[in-house]
Amino acid sequence: MSMHALPPSVILQEEGPREGFQSEGPIPVEHKLRLINALAQTGLTVINCASFVDVRRVPQMADAEAIAVGIQRHPNVRFTGIWLNIKGFERALSAGLDLTPNVFASVSETFALNNNGRNGTDLILSQGAMMERYKAEGLRLQAAHLFTAFGCPYEGLVTPERTVEVLGQLLDVCASHDERPDVVYLCDTVGAANPLSVSRTLDLMQTRWPDLEFALHLHDTRGMGLSNVLAGLQMGVRRFDTSIAGLGGCPFAGNKSAAGNVCTEDVALMCEEMGISTGLDLDRLVDAARIAEEMVGHPVPGKFMKAGRIRPRIT
Amino acid sequence: MSMHALPPSVILQEEGPREGFQSEGPIPVEHKLRLINALAQTGLTVINCASFVDVRRVPQMADAEAIAVGIQRHPNVRFTGIWLNIKGFERALSAGLDLTPNVFASVSETFALNNNGRNGTDLILSQGAMMERYKAEGLRLQAAHLFTAFGCPYEGLVTPERTVEVLGQLLDVCASHDERPDVVYLCDTVGAANPLSVSRTLDLMQTRWPDLEFALHLHDTRGMGLSNVLAGLQMGVRRFDTSIAGLGGCPFAGNKSAAGNVCTEDVALMCEEMGISTGLDLDRLVDAARIAEEMVGHPVPGKFMKAGRIRPRIT
Repeated sequence: MSMHALPPSVILQEEGPREGFQSEGPIPVEHKLRLINALAQTGLTVINCASFVDVRRVPQMADAEAIAVGIQRHPNVRFTGIWLNIKGFERALSAGLDLTPNVFASVSETFALNNNGRNGTDLILSQGAMMERYKAEGLRLQAAHLFTAFGCPYEGLVTPERTVEVLGQLLDVCASHDERPDVVYLCDTVGAANPLSVSRTLDLMQTRWPDLEFALHLHDTRGMGLSNVLAGLQMGVRRFDTSIAGLGGCPFAGNKSAAGNVCTEDVALMCEEMGISTGLDLDRLVDAARIAEEMVGHPVPGKFMKAGRIRPRIT
Repeated sequence: MSMHALPPSVILQEEGPREGFQSEGPIPVEHKLRLINALAQTGLTVINCASFVDVRRVPQMADAEAIAVGIQRHPNVRFTGIWLNIKGFERALSAGLDLTPNVFASVSETFALNNNGRNGTDLILSQGAMMERYKAEGLRLQAAHLFTAFGCPYEGLVTPERTVEVLGQLLDVCASHDERPDVVYLCDTVGAANPLSVSRTLDLMQTRWPDLEFALHLHDTRGMGLSNVLAGLQMGVRRFDTSIAGLGGCPFAGNKSAAGNVCTEDVALMCEEMGISTGLDLDRLVDAARIAEEMVGHPVPGKFMKAGRIRPRIT
């Protein structure tokens, strides 16, 4: 495994209210807003609040506009949402959330069909129209998301080389529209990554595209979530998508037991104990995790919230 | 963080029937034997089956002798037990299990008092009588266990230097009895370790005692279990205590939510996917994990058993 020095600080971007609630039953808007407002008090600077997607397919997200209206704004927090096509982008734009113009591709063809309704190549080519739409609003491309970057249950684990190839295709389409993302998110959509595949994929990508920042969106489906965060930290990754209390799981991942994103407060604890600054208030994160647990009404994966603090010995 | 090359192979030593069942309600002997026999078919070479401890304090282990008698022996498997004093050793000896003569110390004074009924220094000094008792049976010292090697909830996180100091005291007592262990187990009894403390502690110890093998006994109390395994692998550790389905939790750890050891099949999956041979049959491990889950009658921490395999893509 390759390894850099651990970074001095990281940014954890909260996915709980968006990806987390996506796999739960219906939750009243006021409950979601209570959690979002609690999260905004923890030091988090990015909170993903809603999916502007087809409500027939993801009925839990029918309240995306109501969420956007109801959020109590905080000067240090970007309240974001996601979309998968131009129609979704139009909704996000009207709703008035903080926008992160992005493009995406899927390494797994099957996931592309299930999640985005197109094959992998068509999905990549369709990103051109998205970028043109962003331009029409005067918005620059900021991020690229690479779904199933480490494999999926339908098609299996993929090689780092294949993932690099797909990102190359996506960046070519970006270049043909005079765009280039600042950050590329390697999304382990279904929890197929292991620390070595994380390390090798990042190593290849950082070598080929030294000017790009790479971020990780990890799931803890197979228990390797935090190990993969560690592998990412060792490769210099400073931006991670995480989910309060470990909420989540993608409904189109072909895995009924698909676990949530890596748990925000568990990742924060690991980073802080290793001397990596998160800017987060751990106690407030645990309070928010308890609100999330109460809201979904079933046990959640987060461990720190159950175990409590162990403070350094005063000797 | 320091890092060596990942080891080509590891040995996972099963703790489920011993430490795992210790924190459960009463389980019939025949059920425990069913699990032990299933585990013996997975490729595991060491299975810890019983604690020869005070049955008034750990009533779940009152069947230690019955377990030892009932095990269906397997030529490639050592069926071991633990003891905390000479009386316990006598029982283990009579019971006919495979013996690993060992000594122990606790970095936390409070844990020493709670778990062993002595303060830290007295506990270390009392190991002399243990070694003499082993000698009387013609047995050489094999292992040393360092409890709460990374901290405990009573006294907090400890520095690697303090842990090195305690091991030095224990090794001095060994030397004064002309003994030296082959393997030192750093036991994260309550899950207080983080990847950096694992890495630093191992680094100091390997530098000071280059002839000793260091093994890790880790708990997943705060979600960092597999990250700590990864940190250990990166420091060349090749021996880990693990627990099928993630069963376990120490009753004297001062933490009601104390989670079990790192999960055998989850650690095995991570190792195998990183090209580190475990000699284990992953499918049979998952079968054994399901038996364990059925036996305890409540959800268990193991993740791989719920998520299933993701096979390499055939391209």
